[in-house]
Amino acid sequence: MMKAVLLKDFGSADQLYIGETEKPTPKEGELLVRVEATTLNRADIVQRKGRYAPPPGASDILGLETAGVIEAVGPNCGTWKVGDRIASLLTGGGYAQFCLLPYQLAIPIPDQLTFPQGASIPEVWMTAYQVLYFVADIETVKPEFVLIHAGASSVGIAATQLATALGSKVIVTCGSQEKADFCTQQVGAHAAIQYKQEAFEKRVEEITNGKGAGIIIDCVGGGYFQQNLASLSVEGRLVIIGWLSGTQVPDCNLALILRKRLRIEGSTLRARDLQYKEKLAAAIRDYCLPKILDGSFKIFIDREFPVGEIKEAHEYMEANKNKGKIVISGFSSL
Amino acid sequence: MMKAVLLKDFGSADQLYIGETEKPTPKEGELLVRVEATTLNRADIVQRKGRYAPPPGASDILGLETAGVIEAVGPNCGTWKVGDRIASLLTGGGYAQFCLLPYQLAIPIPDQLTFPQGASIPEVWMTAYQVLYFVADIETVKPEFVLIHAGASSVGIAATQLATALGSKVIVTCGSQEKADFCTQQVGAHAAIQYKQEAFEKRVEEITNGKGAGIIIDCVGGGYFQQNLASLSVEGRLVIIGWLSGTQVPDCNLALILRKRLRIEGSTLRARDLQYKEKLAAAIRDYCLPKILDGSFKIFIDREFPVGEIKEAHEYMEANKNKGKIVISGFSSL
Repeated sequence: MMKAVLLKDFGSADQLYIGETEKPTPKEGELLVRVEATTLNRADIVQRKGRYAPPPGASDILGLETAGVIEAVGPNCGTWKVGDRIASLLTGGGYAQFCLLPYQLAIPIPDQLTFPQGASIPEVWMTAYQVLYFVADIETVKPEFVLIHAGASSVGIAATQLATALGSKVIVTCGSQEKADFCTQQVGAHAAIQYKQEAFEKRVEEITNGKGAGIIIDCVGGGYFQQNLASLSVEGRLVIIGWLSGTQVPDCNLALILRKRLRIEGSTLRARDLQYKEKLAAAIRDYCLPKILDGSFKIFIDREFPVGEIKEAHEYMEANKNKGKIVISGFSSL
Repeated sequence: MMKAVLLKDFGSADQLYIGETEKPTPKEGELLVRVEATTLNRADIVQRKGRYAPPPGASDILGLETAGVIEAVGPNCGTWKVGDRIASLLTGGGYAQFCLLPYQLAIPIPDQLTFPQGASIPEVWMTAYQVLYFVADIETVKPEFVLIHAGASSVGIAATQLATALGSKVIVTCGSQEKADFCTQQVGAHAAIQYKQEAFEKRVEEITNGKGAGIIIDCVGGGYFQQNLASLSVEGRLVIIGWLSGTQVPDCNLALILRKRLRIEGSTLRARDLQYKEKLAAAIRDYCLPKILDGSFKIFIDREFPVGEIKEAHEYMEANKNKGKIVISGFSSL
């Protein structure tokens, strides 16, 4: 048996509690990890509310990434061995003392990085890399401007650094002056728009001299759809990765899709197949991790909560207070 | 001077008349063609109504494709010579005794094909090829099912044959039983749905056993948008090429875009740059033309009008009576 964060029922953060459950056993191709740290993701909150079921075969425990030490190795797991420090994306099960993962997704945590730093890598860097490289094909598009909504979110932070490294100027939207300053001064954004103060599409038009953004990364969804179409350049690409404002589009008019030959694509990571995720994990290992180690890419941890304060951690995320990752640690002392 | 179809003013087909205008002169890289045949396209009607201006530098005479004989060759036009029989896409100027085109877009008309057949090739085959190969990337997607709206339109006919040749089962929508029979019996569609009789998204679900279409080619636009999202398979691609129903989407809800990781893309041909069109013309020469000559791809001409009956021809297209191309000929006897 092991300790894990469980749910009394779907609903508010009050439903979270620490209880006992079966300790998993690695099967063929699986690693068992003794968890040192996990993180919060927006998807955890949606799943807690009962609106985002794990994919078939996944653990129904919350938690989409982990950092820890390999405790046991199933048959056919390459060169991984007990004692290795690794981080990984999970389809679920991260809020627990032990979790399972396919060996192909393991990312080594070098000694220079802490477990909280390691746990902060998989979900956001794989999402940002996927969206920019695999979906929007940024290497071919080579956009002068990239617009990233929720610039101070963890995915926003990673995407800003990835796009900037390729030579694009990144415009972000933020909900406060503090977040705007953080994005331009610490993350490297070219400009930050406070969406509560001004219509972002007008500012994008000014900043880009009427050209528009070649790529938009959007987690806001329906409420921003028309303004996103207006903010795209000719042959621009809108990638939708979330629905913070819902899925309904008021007064939807598609005219710009043809006039500017736009592409709109929806993307999620969790339901993708193992091969797809394996390619992404390799990109993180080979491209992002070296740049994290040499300091050219930065990991931003906003706050670390002990697992006993998981309820407070969820409420903190739901209040939109964080810039960067919220980490949960202390599983070994449960 | 030359004779051409001109416009008294923007408006109905009554505005069309045959008048005199300047005969064009080929500049560097341009061929002058003595026109034997041109065709009608939906875009001609929109332009006639004053709602689709030609791109900068293009002739303001209607007509987007031509077939005829080279009358004069500008400097640097490769191996083309006076007397060659060619067809070509145009940015405008087809409804005239003479027209200009960039030599890169010329497609030879072999002796086995008539001028009306030649004139029926560029616009529809380049559009269908572009949409399936360049935009939807059908060779990578390899969809089991492709849904093509307005299956009896010329682009629908070409797209059905192209997708079928790659192994996909093509489902088309049509406005009448006659058109439905034509699509399944003569063009090779797997199934034809009469959209006036039944909701196409329900039938697509049945025909595909709930899987959906991997690619949808849509010229209907706003009115079909939600049903198109419902009819796509996981990672399906919707290519919008027209707005027959307008651009407004009633009760637009984007939820399926993320849930199924859909891609929506708008595409037009006329405003693309010369290099893009040159690649397409080469694909028509090298891939489509040999298959047209050996009978594996068919050109469908619905009806041929002498240029003196241009008004009747426009009205015939606006009444949605045609299956396949409407050709205009007889320019030499004006």
